[in-house]
Amino acid sequence: MHVPEPDDEAVEVDEIEPLRRALEEERQRNLRLLADFDNFRRRVTREQEVARREGRRAALLPLLPVVDTLERALATGSVDPDFYQGVAATHRLFLAALREAGAEPVESVGQPFDPKVHDAVSTVPAAGVEPGTVVREIRRGWRLGDELLRPAQVVVATSPEVARPWR
Amino acid sequence: MHVPEPDDEAVEVDEIEPLRRALEEERQRNLRLLADFDNFRRRVTREQEVARREGRRAALLPLLPVVDTLERALATGSVDPDFYQGVAATHRLFLAALREAGAEPVESVGQPFDPKVHDAVSTVPAAGVEPGTVVREIRRGWRLGDELLRPAQVVVATSPEVARPWR
Repeated sequence: MHVPEPDDEAVEVDEIEPLRRALEEERQRNLRLLADFDNFRRRVTREQEVARREGRRAALLPLLPVVDTLERALATGSVDPDFYQGVAATHRLFLAALREAGAEPVESVGQPFDPKVHDAVSTVPAAGVEPGTVVREIRRGWRLGDELLRPAQVVVATSPEVARPWR
Repeated sequence: MHVPEPDDEAVEVDEIEPLRRALEEERQRNLRLLADFDNFRRRVTREQEVARREGRRAALLPLLPVVDTLERALATGSVDPDFYQGVAATHRLFLAALREAGAEPVESVGQPFDPKVHDAVSTVPAAGVEPGTVVREIRRGWRLGDELLRPAQVVVATSPEVARPWR
């Protein structure tokens, strides 16, 4: 047990209040640091996920025009059925690989126009479909999980009465 | 200023040493926390980079067999030169897109065999090239930055005298 000596009593007693305050401050600082650390850890877990998605996005985006080009080539057809079939098989493999890489095509034709995933490049008066329905896809859109990789470019139906007859 | 009263002096003086120790402990704890936080921050910066690379890798790997298939189709040739040229153009676009996505082909034919990037699927006695040189590429290898996406599958030259003559 500490036995106070007459000389140091006054000094030590004066120290008690500042010591208590300093201790309380350090404890508060500790608690704040722990809370900051915890928040940072949580943020980091989210950011890892974002970074992984960014990596996928950066890898997939340049490849989408390659599918477009391959599809345009296939659309022209060929007089060489064997070669054509080989290329068509490669195209199916390409779509499957994109799905495996996490990319999913946006549904367009027959769907209601959705500005979150569709870019309307033009409209066309159309009978027999609900106005606002996508009637043609110019360029396929792609999603990556719940994010959009690129929007679909589409043609949207308007009511037939909106059409101005040719004079 | 705190004026000690006769009654609380002894109690307060007894408190001083434990207070000092507690304060010192809290300060040490704070310093450790700050150092941990700092280390964590540094580790996280590296891990973000790793996560981004993982994302690229996961997106690119399934697409490499698509290039292989397209190249096999092109290697068979076609009697439809227009269609063939369209597909050949798509193939060049594909290679450019893979480069843009961060993937680089591994150099193989004519290079010394390198187990870090080459898988030797067979050897062949070859005159006129240094033994251990890659003489044929069966499947192209790909890098992603300074990492390997997939090794090249190659045929490696051995000295001609190693060859056992057919009897």
